[in-house]
Amino acid sequence: MPLDLRKFQGVKRNTLNTINIDPLQTGGKLTPEARAALIQWGDGYSVCDFCHGALDEIKTPPIYDFVHEALPEFLGIEHVRITNGAREGMFAVMHALSQEGGWIVLDENAHYSSFIAAERAGLNIKTVPNSDHPDYRIDPDDYAKAFEEVKKDTGKLPVLALLTYPDGNYGNIVDTRHVSKICREYSVPLLLNGAYAIGRMPVNAKDIGADFIVGSGHKSMASSGPIGVLGVKDEYKDVIFRRSEHFEKKEVEMLGCTARGATIMTMMASFPSVVERVKRWSEEVRKAQEFSAQLEKLGLKQLGDKPHQHDLLFFEAQNLYEISQKAKDGRYFLYNELKSRKIHGIKPGLTKFFKLSTFGLPKEELRYVVDAFADIIKKYQ
Amino acid sequence: MPLDLRKFQGVKRNTLNTINIDPLQTGGKLTPEARAALIQWGDGYSVCDFCHGALDEIKTPPIYDFVHEALPEFLGIEHVRITNGAREGMFAVMHALSQEGGWIVLDENAHYSSFIAAERAGLNIKTVPNSDHPDYRIDPDDYAKAFEEVKKDTGKLPVLALLTYPDGNYGNIVDTRHVSKICREYSVPLLLNGAYAIGRMPVNAKDIGADFIVGSGHKSMASSGPIGVLGVKDEYKDVIFRRSEHFEKKEVEMLGCTARGATIMTMMASFPSVVERVKRWSEEVRKAQEFSAQLEKLGLKQLGDKPHQHDLLFFEAQNLYEISQKAKDGRYFLYNELKSRKIHGIKPGLTKFFKLSTFGLPKEELRYVVDAFADIIKKYQ
Repeated sequence: MPLDLRKFQGVKRNTLNTINIDPLQTGGKLTPEARAALIQWGDGYSVCDFCHGALDEIKTPPIYDFVHEALPEFLGIEHVRITNGAREGMFAVMHALSQEGGWIVLDENAHYSSFIAAERAGLNIKTVPNSDHPDYRIDPDDYAKAFEEVKKDTGKLPVLALLTYPDGNYGNIVDTRHVSKICREYSVPLLLNGAYAIGRMPVNAKDIGADFIVGSGHKSMASSGPIGVLGVKDEYKDVIFRRSEHFEKKEVEMLGCTARGATIMTMMASFPSVVERVKRWSEEVRKAQEFSAQLEKLGLKQLGDKPHQHDLLFFEAQNLYEISQKAKDGRYFLYNELKSRKIHGIKPGLTKFFKLSTFGLPKEELRYVVDAFADIIKKYQ
Repeated sequence: MPLDLRKFQGVKRNTLNTINIDPLQTGGKLTPEARAALIQWGDGYSVCDFCHGALDEIKTPPIYDFVHEALPEFLGIEHVRITNGAREGMFAVMHALSQEGGWIVLDENAHYSSFIAAERAGLNIKTVPNSDHPDYRIDPDDYAKAFEEVKKDTGKLPVLALLTYPDGNYGNIVDTRHVSKICREYSVPLLLNGAYAIGRMPVNAKDIGADFIVGSGHKSMASSGPIGVLGVKDEYKDVIFRRSEHFEKKEVEMLGCTARGATIMTMMASFPSVVERVKRWSEEVRKAQEFSAQLEKLGLKQLGDKPHQHDLLFFEAQNLYEISQKAKDGRYFLYNELKSRKIHGIKPGLTKFFKLSTFGLPKEELRYVVDAFADIIKKYQ
C-alpha cells in the first residue's frame, strides 16, 4: 500500500483546549464517569460479553435496568430502546409507520435528518412553515391546516407528525401540548425530536402528549457518539418493535441490536449527571438570555424566540458582516479572530448569520466569549 | 427519581483480565493507537468540529483520505462509506435495491442480521441450504438453483444475492469466485458480508467479483463499536449513495452521516495495524488448525471446513455434554470451569456445541486454553 497510513494515527483534536460553543458539542462533552467507561469498555463489541440475544436485555452491565427502568421514567414513556442516534430513531418510527403514498407533516425548522429519514422511509413530506425572519416561529395551529391539506389532496390523513423541540437552528421552543392536542384530534401520532432537549432540559413525553420521542446521546446526553434514545408509547410498541419472523428475540427496526459497544456504556455512566443537570435547566436558560443580551448590546441581533428559552442561540450580525467586507481575511476573519482567542464553534466563513450554544459553559467562559466579540468589533472599527 | 442511578457508573468489564475467545471479541480488541484516539475523540460528536456537511468529506481529521483513498484500495472497490456496522451496511444496500415483491437469495449460514435486514427492507428471502452436519458447506452451484426457483415462482430474478464470507457459526470459506460467476451469469448483484473477514484476512472485492461488500469495525477491524464499512462498485454508486432531494450533500441511505463520533477515529487509528495483521493471515490459519487438531485429540469434533481456513471454529463436544449430565453445575459446568481459569467466550450453558475464535491470541495462550480443556475433561473422568 503506497499510501502513508501513519497520518491516521495520533491525530490530535486540537479543539480540546478551546472554549467550544458549537451547538453540536456543548451537550455531548463526556463526564469523567463516561470517560472511565470509554476506557473500560472501548474494545469492539465489549458489551456483548454477557449478551443472551438482545442488547437491551443485558443484565451485566446493567443495560436492562437502564433501558427498561431508568430511561422510561426519565423520558415519561413506556418503552425505550437505544438507537445509533436521533435520526436512526426517527427513521425506525417512520419506516415502521410508512405506507404506500403516505405523508408526514413536519415543522420547517426540522433538522435535515428528519427530512432525509422521511425520504428514506418513502414518505411524502409536508412542512408546517415557520414565521420567517426574525422569529422563525412555528404556529401549532398550522399542524391542523397541514393535516387538512394532506387529507384534501390525498383523501387520507398523514401517517405521522413530527415536531422538533427545540429546533437546531434557532433553538425555538414550540407549544408542544398545543401541537399534541391537535394531533390527538386528528388521530395522527406525534413524534418529538428532542435531540437538543433530552439531557439538557426536562422533557416528559406523557406531559407533552408525544407518542414517540427521540433524543441524541452525543448531542445532549454526554455520550460518545453515535448513540440515541427512542421512546415509544405502549399502544405503538408492537408496530415499532416488531419481532423478526426468523429470530424471535430480534426487533426488525433495530436490526437486532443497535449501540453494541462503548457508546451505551458512556451514556449509562453519564446518566446520573445528566439527570442532575436537567434539574438546573432554568440556570442554563438564564445564562443564555444574559449572553444574548450582551451580544445584542454589541450590535448583534438574536433571532428566534425572545426572551430565549434554550441555550442554542442564532445571531444576525450585520456589523460583523460589514467588517468581513473589508477585513484582510474576508469572511474568515471572525473564525480566525475567535480561533486566536481559543474559541471554537462558529463555522469558518460565517459572519452575518451563525448559531452557538452556551450550554454547560461557566459564566466566566461566557464572559470571556462576550469580551472576545467586543474586542474583535472594536479592533476593526 | 427513586431508582439508584449509581449502579450505572464505574461498571468494570471483568472479562478484561481473561483470555477472551469469543468470536465477537477477538478481532475487535483495540490497538494502543485506537485507545489513544478514543480518549482524544471521546466527546459526543467530536469529529464534527471541522465538518462542512458530510462525514466522509472531513479533511481534518483525515477521514476523507481514509474513506476515499485508503479503504477503497484496502477493499478493492471503488466507493466506500463508513456505516454503523455490517448489518447497517447490508440494510442500506438491500433497502436501496428493494422492490415491491422482490427477493433476496442468501446462504443458510448467513448471520441473523442478514435475515433481519432483508425483512426490514421488505425483501422475500430464499436461502441456499448448507450441507448440514458435520460440514455445513454451501455449494456455490446452489445459488444458480435458487435463482432459477425464484424466477420460476415469481417470473423475476432476485434483486440481490448475499454470501457470508466466512459465516459466523462455522467459519466456513465458500468459493466466492464461483458464486460471483453465477451471479454475473444471471445479472444478480452480489453482496459479500465480510464481517469476519475484512480486517482479519485479505479480501479484495474486485478479485472476488462482489458488487457490494460490508465489514465490521467492532468485529474485525480493532475498532470501538458500533462501526462498519460498506464498499460499492462504481456502477451502483448512484443507487446506493442517492442524494437527498432536499439536501444535496446528504446521502439518503446513510441518513446524512453515520459514525459521527469516536468510533471512526478508532477505526482509522487501528487501520495501519489492521493492514499489517492481514498480511499475517496464513499464520492465523495455521494457529487455528493446530488448535483444532489439539481439541480433537481431546475428543471434541470440529465441524465445518476441514482443514479449517479461518480462526472461527465450531466444536461438537459429546464428551463435555456427557460430563454436563452428571456435573454438579450441570450445563454450566464448562462455563464455570473456564471462568475459574480466566478463560471467557463460550456462552454459559453450552457444552455440546459451541464456537470460539483463536484470532490474535499468542500461541502460549492457545496452549493454555487447550490445557484447560484437557484439565477439565480429566477432572470429570
